[in-house]
Amino acid sequence: MRILALVLAISAVASGALAAAGAASDWRDVDPDNLVLIDTKYGETVLELYPAFAPSAAARFKALVRAHFYDGQSFYRVIDGFVAQGGIGEGTAATGGAKANDKRLKNWPPLKAEFDRPIGDDVVFTKVDNADLFAPVIGHANGFPVGQDPKEGKEWIIHCPGTLAFARDNDPDTASTEFYIVIGQAPRRLDRNLTAFGRVLAGLAYIQKLYRGNRDIDNGVIADVAKRDRIVSSRIASDLPAAKRPHYQVMNTESAAFAKWKNDRINPAPGFYIRQPPPILDICLASVPVRVAPK
Amino acid sequence: MRILALVLAISAVASGALAAAGAASDWRDVDPDNLVLIDTKYGETVLELYPAFAPSAAARFKALVRAHFYDGQSFYRVIDGFVAQGGIGEGTAATGGAKANDKRLKNWPPLKAEFDRPIGDDVVFTKVDNADLFAPVIGHANGFPVGQDPKEGKEWIIHCPGTLAFARDNDPDTASTEFYIVIGQAPRRLDRNLTAFGRVLAGLAYIQKLYRGNRDIDNGVIADVAKRDRIVSSRIASDLPAAKRPHYQVMNTESAAFAKWKNDRINPAPGFYIRQPPPILDICLASVPVRVAPK
Repeated sequence: MRILALVLAISAVASGALAAAGAASDWRDVDPDNLVLIDTKYGETVLELYPAFAPSAAARFKALVRAHFYDGQSFYRVIDGFVAQGGIGEGTAATGGAKANDKRLKNWPPLKAEFDRPIGDDVVFTKVDNADLFAPVIGHANGFPVGQDPKEGKEWIIHCPGTLAFARDNDPDTASTEFYIVIGQAPRRLDRNLTAFGRVLAGLAYIQKLYRGNRDIDNGVIADVAKRDRIVSSRIASDLPAAKRPHYQVMNTESAAFAKWKNDRINPAPGFYIRQPPPILDICLASVPVRVAPK
Repeated sequence: MRILALVLAISAVASGALAAAGAASDWRDVDPDNLVLIDTKYGETVLELYPAFAPSAAARFKALVRAHFYDGQSFYRVIDGFVAQGGIGEGTAATGGAKANDKRLKNWPPLKAEFDRPIGDDVVFTKVDNADLFAPVIGHANGFPVGQDPKEGKEWIIHCPGTLAFARDNDPDTASTEFYIVIGQAPRRLDRNLTAFGRVLAGLAYIQKLYRGNRDIDNGVIADVAKRDRIVSSRIASDLPAAKRPHYQVMNTESAAFAKWKNDRINPAPGFYIRQPPPILDICLASVPVRVAPK
């Protein structure tokens, strides 16, 4: 009994078969200086940063990782279907109120918000030709889901499952050290309201295993510190010895292979579907394929 | 530092404050005969069935649970961001090809598809007043996300995170015993292509902890049987002794309280949002509030 076989067969074409057959130019090597590895007891999660959209945030995150700021800290606010928030947990109900004078924050002053950026030639945008509920225009850049408002001349990283962003207080310019990873249905209302600067390439399933808080109590902060899952380590791939450095590739969203991948999802082959689905690409369902670079 | 506080404050109003302050009629008691408990080593997941949308599927699932069909079986195909599929795993690549003559299936012949139903008075539908990418009309019925096509006179349960449905082969009328729970971004292309008949009310986080397969290998089926997480037990609440029976309530989607809940999400209060989000309810982001019935 082939169950949901075609649904997966289509995915296999995207990330499996193409992984084997694709020409080199169909894939982009991830810059090891933008490749972040976060370890928990469940396994290693791999993220790519995208400095073009949030240069200060990406630089801050790398500096925090390199300073071992997160090592030994935790995911202290984890809300099923929403976000896993990591860092030192300062100023939360569970840790005893605001700690603006926390010594650990001394070297990490609040950052200016980078909620969007001017549309510019340094980012190559490939449009998705269907409507979206939240952005006037959607597409991909560098493998990331991106929204655009041509009238305003702005573009931004969309909040999809796996999006990495800095948390903040009510004031826009208050992100400092605390970050979150989206773990549920895309919370698109956060688009252009938080500074998104990366996405998970592999190992989101490990983040899904994190111990959860209760969203109705302390905004999801896990009061029992012992229950919070620890960030065992965080590293930038380029800091690892060459022999231990992982090499990831993301499908080149400017390539013909990607155009075919999109079309295969918008217009699935007949067989499994009894009713042809509407010809729509949900930009947050169709995560751009990633692979470990072939030897 | 209040991080993402308002986002959660809004949720707290929905499921926390209203849980405390709401009038009785704002909540609907879940019929214990439609309340299913699935235990894994991670914890208990609670689901509600909705027979009005798929009477044969709901009846079959209850009969399978009552026959202890699933007890000791497993979630054998778990794809991060997509679905967790449970049952006996028959006919999968990992178990050695089609087993149409599997003795365990003798009492469970294939079911007629119930992909949608005629719009009718036995289901009270409350419309959501914004567009959707996949359905002409969206709304809620009995706490479930529902799509409608008024021209065709049909309605169906939407595939959101937590949706429960029967898997099938390519032929529409082949669902028998294998089921899946959606664990990622809503796979809306499955709407009206599979028989959805329930949803998770609590404990989806435990399903998120299940051991994952690789979507590029064997369609996500976990080849190593020892690694598959077991279904420890499955039960219908009404079969439990009264003292051990859980009592759940779902916000009444016909109530004024629910209308307010929707509005609070479509038009979030100022404070946290720097840019007011588009006034859109993503029907799969806004899961209808659930609570344990107050004593």
